[in-house]
Amino acid sequence: MERRLKHWGWGYEDQAPSATQLREAAEGIRARFGFGGEVEKPVPLEEVELRAVRLKRPSGFGDLFSDEHYERVSHALGKAYRDVVRGFYGRFENPPDLVAFPRDESEIEAVLSWAEAEGAAVIPFGGGTSVVGGVEARVGERPVVSLDLRRLDRVLEVDPASLAARIQAGATGPGLEGQLREHGLTLRHFPQSFEYSTLGGWIATRAGGHFATLETHVDDLVESVRAITPRGTWESRRLPGSGAGPSPDRLLIGSEGILGVIAEAWVRVRPRPEFKSSVSVEFGEFGQATEAIRAIAQSGLYPANCRLLDAGEAELTGAGDGSAHLLILGFESADHPVDTSMDRALEIARDHAGTPAATGRDVAPVDHGRSTDRSVDQWRGAFLLAPYLRDTFVACGVLSETFETAITWNRFEEFQATVMETARRATAEACGVPADGPGSPRVSCRLTHAYPDGAAPYFTVLAPAIRGGEVEQWDEIKAAVSEALIDAGGTITHHHAVGRDHRPWYDRQRPAPFAAALRAAKAELDPAGMLNPGVLIDPA
Amino acid sequence: MERRLKHWGWGYEDQAPSATQLREAAEGIRARFGFGGEVEKPVPLEEVELRAVRLKRPSGFGDLFSDEHYERVSHALGKAYRDVVRGFYGRFENPPDLVAFPRDESEIEAVLSWAEAEGAAVIPFGGGTSVVGGVEARVGERPVVSLDLRRLDRVLEVDPASLAARIQAGATGPGLEGQLREHGLTLRHFPQSFEYSTLGGWIATRAGGHFATLETHVDDLVESVRAITPRGTWESRRLPGSGAGPSPDRLLIGSEGILGVIAEAWVRVRPRPEFKSSVSVEFGEFGQATEAIRAIAQSGLYPANCRLLDAGEAELTGAGDGSAHLLILGFESADHPVDTSMDRALEIARDHAGTPAATGRDVAPVDHGRSTDRSVDQWRGAFLLAPYLRDTFVACGVLSETFETAITWNRFEEFQATVMETARRATAEACGVPADGPGSPRVSCRLTHAYPDGAAPYFTVLAPAIRGGEVEQWDEIKAAVSEALIDAGGTITHHHAVGRDHRPWYDRQRPAPFAAALRAAKAELDPAGMLNPGVLIDPA
Repeated sequence: MERRLKHWGWGYEDQAPSATQLREAAEGIRARFGFGGEVEKPVPLEEVELRAVRLKRPSGFGDLFSDEHYERVSHALGKAYRDVVRGFYGRFENPPDLVAFPRDESEIEAVLSWAEAEGAAVIPFGGGTSVVGGVEARVGERPVVSLDLRRLDRVLEVDPASLAARIQAGATGPGLEGQLREHGLTLRHFPQSFEYSTLGGWIATRAGGHFATLETHVDDLVESVRAITPRGTWESRRLPGSGAGPSPDRLLIGSEGILGVIAEAWVRVRPRPEFKSSVSVEFGEFGQATEAIRAIAQSGLYPANCRLLDAGEAELTGAGDGSAHLLILGFESADHPVDTSMDRALEIARDHAGTPAATGRDVAPVDHGRSTDRSVDQWRGAFLLAPYLRDTFVACGVLSETFETAITWNRFEEFQATVMETARRATAEACGVPADGPGSPRVSCRLTHAYPDGAAPYFTVLAPAIRGGEVEQWDEIKAAVSEALIDAGGTITHHHAVGRDHRPWYDRQRPAPFAAALRAAKAELDPAGMLNPGVLIDPA
Repeated sequence: MERRLKHWGWGYEDQAPSATQLREAAEGIRARFGFGGEVEKPVPLEEVELRAVRLKRPSGFGDLFSDEHYERVSHALGKAYRDVVRGFYGRFENPPDLVAFPRDESEIEAVLSWAEAEGAAVIPFGGGTSVVGGVEARVGERPVVSLDLRRLDRVLEVDPASLAARIQAGATGPGLEGQLREHGLTLRHFPQSFEYSTLGGWIATRAGGHFATLETHVDDLVESVRAITPRGTWESRRLPGSGAGPSPDRLLIGSEGILGVIAEAWVRVRPRPEFKSSVSVEFGEFGQATEAIRAIAQSGLYPANCRLLDAGEAELTGAGDGSAHLLILGFESADHPVDTSMDRALEIARDHAGTPAATGRDVAPVDHGRSTDRSVDQWRGAFLLAPYLRDTFVACGVLSETFETAITWNRFEEFQATVMETARRATAEACGVPADGPGSPRVSCRLTHAYPDGAAPYFTVLAPAIRGGEVEQWDEIKAAVSEALIDAGGTITHHHAVGRDHRPWYDRQRPAPFAAALRAAKAELDPAGMLNPGVLIDPA
């Protein structure tokens, strides 16, 4: 039997931890955090009750459409904590009526035509890893087709001279990297969802990736995009740069499926790095660490990695013992040694009272993969495992959530403190626990991307869940922290997208005339308002 | 009396060459190129005949509006060869009826309201240096107000922590750099029009600047924009990065005045470079030089300058003697020495049969400005003088034009050869001279910006003008070369914008659904279609 993704939460069915592992995890969590409960079991797939299908599966399309129980369930939710906990309890309130699996563009067009005639909504679906309600059919009474693009999974063409590749939208991270490896190339776009998410999803949501500086978002890796709109094909020219009017690509990038279905893109790839250097640097004061990052980001050194874990986050991920803040610096190149750059970056870090780890430093050229610095490896592992761990948290009665944003340096210090404090207070209130001391919420912060003019802080919250009330808790915390982010001048999202969950704050953030322009553009290209209604803008 | 810009052509009235200088220039041109005629004189300002003003200058606005002859004349044309030659002959066919000089946003709003009520068109005007018909009122019978933003010329705020500055749209290059210098900062955006063009103009046209890699366009320097649309103020948040929906800024950047009037922007500035290195490298084969650039652009070294002059262009600008192609490489940093990077770049150049100049190399730290490499200096000087020289060409009966584009590396070689050949053939035909040999057109090429996936070639054409028929000649050459650029997969403009002159080819280049989206957006924000009609899209 084919390996199948879990119908809720993260990963494949065969990756679920055993009962023993879960029990031990729950004990460990209680011992460490002072909260969390006994292990509960998810509602199994066969016991999930869905509302009746409101669209008759059309004949004459072969296996293009499915109304199978598993498909409807596994396309009903994204992967926010809010989604995972509902999936765990078997609450799939907004399942699609049908799931379509096009193999090519003509089948995408067929789905759009058929759905438009039926008055159905269509939700483009890549890896389904949205953490902002981007793929959930919260569209009222309107019937819904989930348009799963994962059969469009191929690298179609490689242009080694221009270091570019034409890749189908449904290719997952490992899928496209595997195909590129045959050409000695890599995209090197590694969001946390890398294992499951797709190129089309990354482009639609402006996903953040591997690089802490320069190409921080997939936006910068896109050379051209091809999308199917209800009113024709939108294809931009392959160009290294252009000044011909506003960038067509930049209007599609971040459009979250409301303007068209991204079918493929030419993206900028590169040779695999031959020279790498990674070092972790400890700081006693958080402010000194952020000043070091500011200086490095403004130096023109362009580290590939420049992530800061505060002491709490370092402890949480096992990268540190919680006694210091940890800056993970990395340089990489396929062309030249990176020692000079690392030396200068470490000099800047030392100028800001940072202490580089004594335990080794990768030197050029290195084997791909492992660092000799334990903190670096530990953090990398934890990064990709975090979404798996969230499923365990749900089972053990731990509420977990993340918030990510960006802010200019001049406001950084106050902003970061305000958001931390708001998250702590709002979480304590929503969970009925004290804001400080034993049993209080764990709020930690990391900086994921660094810019000359600011940084992208990422907040993690862990707290005791009220069993059965997690969604209400989550909504309360989400609203309080989002309000704080927006009031203090940040963006509601640096790389998680807007979807449906971030709408109230996104609406306050964006310029009103831009919203009007976007609404008009959508009405022109999608007059039936069928594409992902409610995302980014309201249905007309 | 206040120093005044010439009513035609480039620069100030007091910068016009003397009769003797012009006569000597004409002789020199004839000797060098084998074409060009006697010096003719431009039609003086007082002899220029304009059509009657069709809008009564409104009372109650103080000196906001002007209908003076000089203002109407000097706002009637941009600075394309097509414009300069018409200005020279006194052909100001589409003068604005009024010119408005707002001092603040409320005055911009007042102009828009008044013009909308009058049914007039409004053309935002910065430095007036458009080379694509972007500021000329080719709008038929509709009365027109030219909206000159140069009174909005201040740096309003500097944020030294984030290295950002809030600058009014009408500030010119020298104006804003002068104000930033007081803070030890610089924008370092140096388009060829730098002396006269404005920040708002750069943003509206996606101007290309100083940096040959990374921040090639002003797009990358923009942190947020504030624009006045007929339906409200469009202001984005200051953010170092964001993933909240499609970028609002990227829809305004390149909008060429059709969506709103850019009033101010936060831009990313930087400390003045303390370490610089410039070296010129000679190549015998053009293909070897471009392969060297490709390797450098794909190396991750990010030179600030990486410009290639072909042998003809090197000779034309005096940077070389025409025996070799000349690559000008430059690195700069405010933080660290750039020798390691230059060493590696030169190593790559040598691997491609390049010969670095023996005559010196700047070492770190250097005095701002001069290089010790004569070719580098020579080229820099010629770059900023070129637009002045064009006026002289017009007076001496020399037709001059430039074309600029971008193309991916895989198509570069064939593309470049095709465009060169088309330009040579079309120019010879339009000028009635042989395509090769004595008296034939001079067609040369430089590469202005280098990307990992391609490059931006820039073509210069010099040929004998048919006196009085220059516009028709120009139109014929423009059409032939533009057709070739578009057929061969390039962009109709890498950094000169679209305006009215590039429309036919821009229309073929852009995705049709994007054009529909842009039209819908404009209809929403500018229902009267008053803002710069005919630019980018047709009036509804």
